[in-house]
Amino acid sequence: MRIAELSQQTGVPVPTIKYYLREGLLPAGELTRPNQANYDDRHVQRLRLVRVLLDIGRLPIATIRQLLAALDEPDPDVHTVLGRALPSAAGGKDSIDPERVSAARVRIDKLAAERGWLVGRNAPARQAAAEVLAAFELVGADASALLVRYADVAEDIARFDLSFVGQASDAEGMLYSAVVGSILGDSLLAALRRMTQEHESAKKFGIRGDD
Amino acid sequence: MRIAELSQQTGVPVPTIKYYLREGLLPAGELTRPNQANYDDRHVQRLRLVRVLLDIGRLPIATIRQLLAALDEPDPDVHTVLGRALPSAAGGKDSIDPERVSAARVRIDKLAAERGWLVGRNAPARQAAAEVLAAFELVGADASALLVRYADVAEDIARFDLSFVGQASDAEGMLYSAVVGSILGDSLLAALRRMTQEHESAKKFGIRGDD
Repeated sequence: MRIAELSQQTGVPVPTIKYYLREGLLPAGELTRPNQANYDDRHVQRLRLVRVLLDIGRLPIATIRQLLAALDEPDPDVHTVLGRALPSAAGGKDSIDPERVSAARVRIDKLAAERGWLVGRNAPARQAAAEVLAAFELVGADASALLVRYADVAEDIARFDLSFVGQASDAEGMLYSAVVGSILGDSLLAALRRMTQEHESAKKFGIRGDD
Repeated sequence: MRIAELSQQTGVPVPTIKYYLREGLLPAGELTRPNQANYDDRHVQRLRLVRVLLDIGRLPIATIRQLLAALDEPDPDVHTVLGRALPSAAGGKDSIDPERVSAARVRIDKLAAERGWLVGRNAPARQAAAEVLAAFELVGADASALLVRYADVAEDIARFDLSFVGQASDAEGMLYSAVVGSILGDSLLAALRRMTQEHESAKKFGIRGDD
């Protein structure tokens, strides 16, 4: 299909598609003439993925480029790339001083060791977790109990997540599911958590006028 | 304290503090002279909160302004504001067609009704959850089983979250905890989930060189 049809099928304007092509978020189409390219269903699928990672995952363009590059590699390190896609691993954390983050990192490493988690020493998720923990402390909140409880929950979810990934029939599909399940899964869980928080709060403090 | 000391205590540069003052993210200091204001510990605390909501929560300035305004109101609707702070509720979802979102919304409303969740009909979290569900579908992933499992997990976390909020001694502290716990909690859970996903994956598919 031509770029106009790709635009029509996905609802993404042509100039935006051209921007994604320039930014390397979308592989080039097959050139049919010097000035005309052909796109197929894989472009439709990729374009949809880019849009939900931007809109729902709210990931920066550079992070999406890394994620997509990992999807296209023969032996991708998808965990490292997914770890880098965590908001707290996005850099620019000059608001939290490094000593505080280092101290939090020791606690995260201890937690992972005690629970026997097989996680690379340099996994970005370790540092991301440490930065969030340091942020809790910086704003004066004690996250100790929360950390233990969330670790339990994370263990529980991860077992399920792997079965979600395992539904795919091939390696490419499994990678795709890991990316989709992780990024969209964070957002789905956050939204459901807000709903259940409102529910628990309504039970405890009474119901608001809206209901 | 003067603005220079506020900057020193928080590590936030003076021009950035002035920007937050203009944007209404930080209340004005007490004027001591026409051109000089005095800041106190509440400004330090507020400034730290703004920074972690920006850096770790990756929230847009406008959303942070809404959250902070809710904190300062006498009878704030913190759930609605927290719901609006969800990435998927941030608007600009022209990548997902409205019919798809409407269909997903019916499923979310059904889920909430079946589980007896006391959640406002217009709660932004409902729409946010529907948009993520529609996004899963758009990229070709079946999120049915995931939705049920995550709803269980969300119920479980919310009960714990309310006890975290309940630690605070006054209404202001509880609101503050709700904001911190929800926004930073999402990030902490996402980071721990990446670690446990890597662990489950290592158990299933073998360990990578990094370990």
